[in-house]
Amino acid sequence: MLIVGELINTSRKAIKPAVEARDAAFIKDMAQKQVDAGADYVDVNCGTMVFNEEETMAWLVETVQSQVTAPLCIDSPNPKALEVGLSLCKHGQPMINSITAEKERYATILPFVLKYKAKIVGLCMDDSGMPETAEDRLRIADRLVGDMVAAGVPEDDIYLDPLVKPVSTGDKAGLEVLDTIYGIKQKYPKVHGICGLSNISYGLPNRKILNQVFMIQTMTMGMDGYILDPLDKTMMGFVYASQALLGKDEFCMKYLTAHRNGLYE
Amino acid sequence: MLIVGELINTSRKAIKPAVEARDAAFIKDMAQKQVDAGADYVDVNCGTMVFNEEETMAWLVETVQSQVTAPLCIDSPNPKALEVGLSLCKHGQPMINSITAEKERYATILPFVLKYKAKIVGLCMDDSGMPETAEDRLRIADRLVGDMVAAGVPEDDIYLDPLVKPVSTGDKAGLEVLDTIYGIKQKYPKVHGICGLSNISYGLPNRKILNQVFMIQTMTMGMDGYILDPLDKTMMGFVYASQALLGKDEFCMKYLTAHRNGLYE
Repeated sequence: MLIVGELINTSRKAIKPAVEARDAAFIKDMAQKQVDAGADYVDVNCGTMVFNEEETMAWLVETVQSQVTAPLCIDSPNPKALEVGLSLCKHGQPMINSITAEKERYATILPFVLKYKAKIVGLCMDDSGMPETAEDRLRIADRLVGDMVAAGVPEDDIYLDPLVKPVSTGDKAGLEVLDTIYGIKQKYPKVHGICGLSNISYGLPNRKILNQVFMIQTMTMGMDGYILDPLDKTMMGFVYASQALLGKDEFCMKYLTAHRNGLYE
Repeated sequence: MLIVGELINTSRKAIKPAVEARDAAFIKDMAQKQVDAGADYVDVNCGTMVFNEEETMAWLVETVQSQVTAPLCIDSPNPKALEVGLSLCKHGQPMINSITAEKERYATILPFVLKYKAKIVGLCMDDSGMPETAEDRLRIADRLVGDMVAAGVPEDDIYLDPLVKPVSTGDKAGLEVLDTIYGIKQKYPKVHGICGLSNISYGLPNRKILNQVFMIQTMTMGMDGYILDPLDKTMMGFVYASQALLGKDEFCMKYLTAHRNGLYE
């Protein structure tokens, strides 16, 4: 299981002003809290800072790394910002969010994956746009895995994101993702699955409940990476409980540790 | 999805004295509350009343039926008590809990299933005892489905219970059940799965969390029946949320109704 802490993202209300003010103490605290709560990677996303994203990325990466030794997930639609962030990563193996099967984006991002020997989030989309069905997603997954492995990327470094759409826009939106992750793990047992959770519940009430259930459902089908808020105790509690019930937690040790750490209070 | 309300069971502390005192108002209230909360069937179990189980079963069945029109799940290890209960059922199709592949029990219970055209809970166990692996369970499932269908029981009336053992006694206990239910639904799409949830968490802290997660996990793999406490709002909330995300709730209508009924407060 790989947990990417999602909180350092300038699209979040609490973060943007802190980043604009170069409030290092705030960012360091946010990084430390996520690592303490169980994040394996710290996501760094300043995509909303369109006028100085590269300089902001450099400051964020250096600030976070001055506090924690967890590796970073460099997250941007802008290749220049990605490269700035990656060039500064010094703790462990960086992660890139994201590549797609879109011709131009694939050609731009692949060299970074190889140069920085990074883990890579691969979104299941191509130049024909967002896929509808599991079949469409699996076709794109085949292409992403096939091409990246041929280029020298280890299967174990690939994290495929099936692209989660709101179930409020189509009854089968959740099911298509579940079928996709099952299909990926059947065909490529070493390739990982990753996703964010909040899209699934868009437009419906009690979004937290739906996000929790969808995490447990996707994990049951083989998903083994999430981009989420690790400070959400309920969500992290469900991560450990799910792992224990899926036979991935010897003697339920991690579950019992989470219990002793007060995660289920 | 079929929800069997489990509360009218004399092994529960609150129930036994009420049943011994023939407190009809208490039992009627317990039946009504379960139906109001979404139970499709009301389980009736007085197996702890070893000295007068048959007479107690008769009183319970008549008392519950004087209040609700929901069908009953007649639940006993004692064939005589089962027959007494079944002979009195007058609302809809009764359910029998349970048959097994044990030679003697199978021969005793099958005639009841046929005579009362009942839904039948089939426990995946035989004369060699409790199964360990999914493979063992699926072998017994094959035999139960094959024999019952040959005897004239419709596949749609069969609810197979994979037998849930505590994950505290073996890391793979949950996984074996998940693999079993997946295997059953792949091979017999019309046959149903059913289980109780509390065994999975025996011996561990925060049992409710584990029971909730295991329900969501099993439902993801195709389980479509649960014997549970329908007055547990959180659990019922997860039932509706899971169904919505699995594409089994058109336009999320049942989920939205549950929300309006305050299930997620």
